[in-house]
Amino acid sequence: SHNYKIAVLPGDGIGPEVTAESVKVLNVIAQAFQYNFQFEYAKMGAEAIFETGNPLPEETLTVCKNADAVLFGAIGDPYFDNNPDAKVRPEQGLLKLRKELGLFANIRPIKTYTSLTKKSPLKKEVVDGTDIQIYRELISGIYFGEKFTDENGEYAYDVCKYSKDEIVQIAHLAFQDAQKRRKKVTLVDKANVLDTSRLWRKVVQEIAKDYPDVTLEFLFVDNAAMQMILNPKQFDVILTENMFGDIISDEASVIGGSIGLLPSASIGNDNALFEPIHGSYPQAKGKGIANPIASILSAAMLLDYLKLDVAANKLREAVEHAIDHRYVTEDLNKEQNYSTSEVGDFIVDYI
Amino acid sequence: SHNYKIAVLPGDGIGPEVTAESVKVLNVIAQAFQYNFQFEYAKMGAEAIFETGNPLPEETLTVCKNADAVLFGAIGDPYFDNNPDAKVRPEQGLLKLRKELGLFANIRPIKTYTSLTKKSPLKKEVVDGTDIQIYRELISGIYFGEKFTDENGEYAYDVCKYSKDEIVQIAHLAFQDAQKRRKKVTLVDKANVLDTSRLWRKVVQEIAKDYPDVTLEFLFVDNAAMQMILNPKQFDVILTENMFGDIISDEASVIGGSIGLLPSASIGNDNALFEPIHGSYPQAKGKGIANPIASILSAAMLLDYLKLDVAANKLREAVEHAIDHRYVTEDLNKEQNYSTSEVGDFIVDYI
Ligand SMILES: CC(C)[C@H](C(=O)O)[C@@H](O)C(=O)O
Ligand SMILES: CC(C)[C@H](C(=O)O)[C@@H](O)C(=O)O
Repeated sequence: SHNYKIAVLPGDGIGPEVTAESVKVLNVIAQAFQYNFQFEYAKMGAEAIFETGNPLPEETLTVCKNADAVLFGAIGDPYFDNNPDAKVRPEQGLLKLRKELGLFANIRPIKTYTSLTKKSPLKKEVVDGTDIQIYRELISGIYFGEKFTDENGEYAYDVCKYSKDEIVQIAHLAFQDAQKRRKKVTLVDKANVLDTSRLWRKVVQEIAKDYPDVTLEFLFVDNAAMQMILNPKQFDVILTENMFGDIISDEASVIGGSIGLLPSASIGNDNALFEPIHGSYPQAKGKGIANPIASILSAAMLLDYLKLDVAANKLREAVEHAIDHRYVTEDLNKEQNYSTSEVGDFIVDYI
Repeated sequence: SHNYKIAVLPGDGIGPEVTAESVKVLNVIAQAFQYNFQFEYAKMGAEAIFETGNPLPEETLTVCKNADAVLFGAIGDPYFDNNPDAKVRPEQGLLKLRKELGLFANIRPIKTYTSLTKKSPLKKEVVDGTDIQIYRELISGIYFGEKFTDENGEYAYDVCKYSKDEIVQIAHLAFQDAQKRRKKVTLVDKANVLDTSRLWRKVVQEIAKDYPDVTLEFLFVDNAAMQMILNPKQFDVILTENMFGDIISDEASVIGGSIGLLPSASIGNDNALFEPIHGSYPQAKGKGIANPIASILSAAMLLDYLKLDVAANKLREAVEHAIDHRYVTEDLNKEQNYSTSEVGDFIVDYI
């Protein structure tokens, strides 16, 4: 059938503004392709804490579990960042949601648009043609291991733990994707120091045997942080654990010239969530200057996930059209630019 | 007195070649300034394992403990990297040495040479004038916490632990350095996720009160990985924990155009070790193409540490002279270049 329930969590900062554009765009997609999208809104993050004391209210979790997919905006608020003693923080909502929905793989495509490479801090010849797919493990590792701070504030610890099964499931996704691409997987780890990294290396080496057409390479995370800047074109699929994935994918996000362009998908066995890579940028909140494209491209990944490929491609085409015609927000064009909703309207009109 | 014992650990890969140039240069410094440097060589790393089974033989540790300072080359060998089951690995030698000597602060200056910025993957206007001092905690955190892999290889963990005292001692060094510089400290952490990061934030906020002339800023490590590329000039002193420091400082090392230029100092209360940031580059071993400048500038930091400031500055002047006259190895000049020892000779002649 062509009925889909989509949970919408606008979240904090610029989240609501950019998510509104995605919903607008999905509505016109629904019209054009005769789908029925039923949007159910729910709260998460700082706003949810201020209203309910809970960054992920039970109701929100239920809405997400019952949905075919979740569209999420952004999370985080300086009020909590500057208060290390806060017991409840917005990010806990997102982390709990990822865990509860079993979203074990965070997929971040890093692509450059030739017309935008002049915005990149890197030289054109270094970045042009970059096309990387990052697979970041999302519901284990140091994010979800045991945590402890003693009551006198004398010491604290965080445990990074991985099981073989956790590595296996995301590794298969990465290798399968590589088979459809340039057939190379780079495992990023710190196997010269960490036991968990050595487990990753061992398990992934084993899985690689099932994919004889794919080349497996290893890179220490410190070296990966260098190589990402020196020569991003060397990468096809990057596979890594949660914390290294957080750092390396944010680093990679600057390559194309704007983090405001980059979408992500978080995939589990029964659920999926789509969100821009960028954060909540509280400084930009309410100003109508936030770039909606990362959110709109996240909506395109949502359409992919629902196997609505034609619609997804139409949406991407519309985004490229907007970028090519310089119909963009101020992060991409200082001189002449459009507001968040004007960019959304332009994409809607094209579709 | 002007007698100094310097332990020399050439290590693996290109370590011996570049260290030989530093010793050559230190010898001519000794002549010129009437110091007496007594060099004591010792083994560490892969070579030490192949000969003795131990990456840090007891004898090496004794030599280092009795020395006024340690000059170290590089560590690591592909034989061990590709063998996740190896029980003994070269890196363990370096980690144990850092711990045994109590080298709690790893200091990495990141500076650009205007004449070399065209080698940088980043645009000239982004990097020119970058001058960062990174303080990385070096003997705690996930590197030294409890590690475990179960015998069936079903799971593994690594514990990241920090005590307040460990944070206090390096934080003071960072603030004191900032007072002599542009008076800004940026603490890089992941306080929205980790208990240890929240402890860092709390302790460092407290210490900042002793340095009212220094501004303290906080940055999540994922954002820091972006900002380092978007606008490295915004940073003065960066303070961070062990693993984040490993990643961020290697990332930062590409800014200037060659990692072959960057020295580091590892400082404790009674000992200090000086080493280039670059690794052992086994592919380049024995070819005479390795850039000796990172090691030679590490020797300059060693002279600083011994309070031989005039000699240290002379050495830096000689290095700048070599760079300005394009008397460099092939990493810095593809068309016309000199061998590792020719560059060393040029610097010796200048002094
Ligand atoms: C908000 C934060 C907890 C989150 C993370 O670290 O996973 C964010 O940085 C991301 O990458 O989605
Ligand atoms: C060799 C390795 C263990 C080491 C580290 O991670 O500390 C190196 O990368 C460094 O930064 O000195």
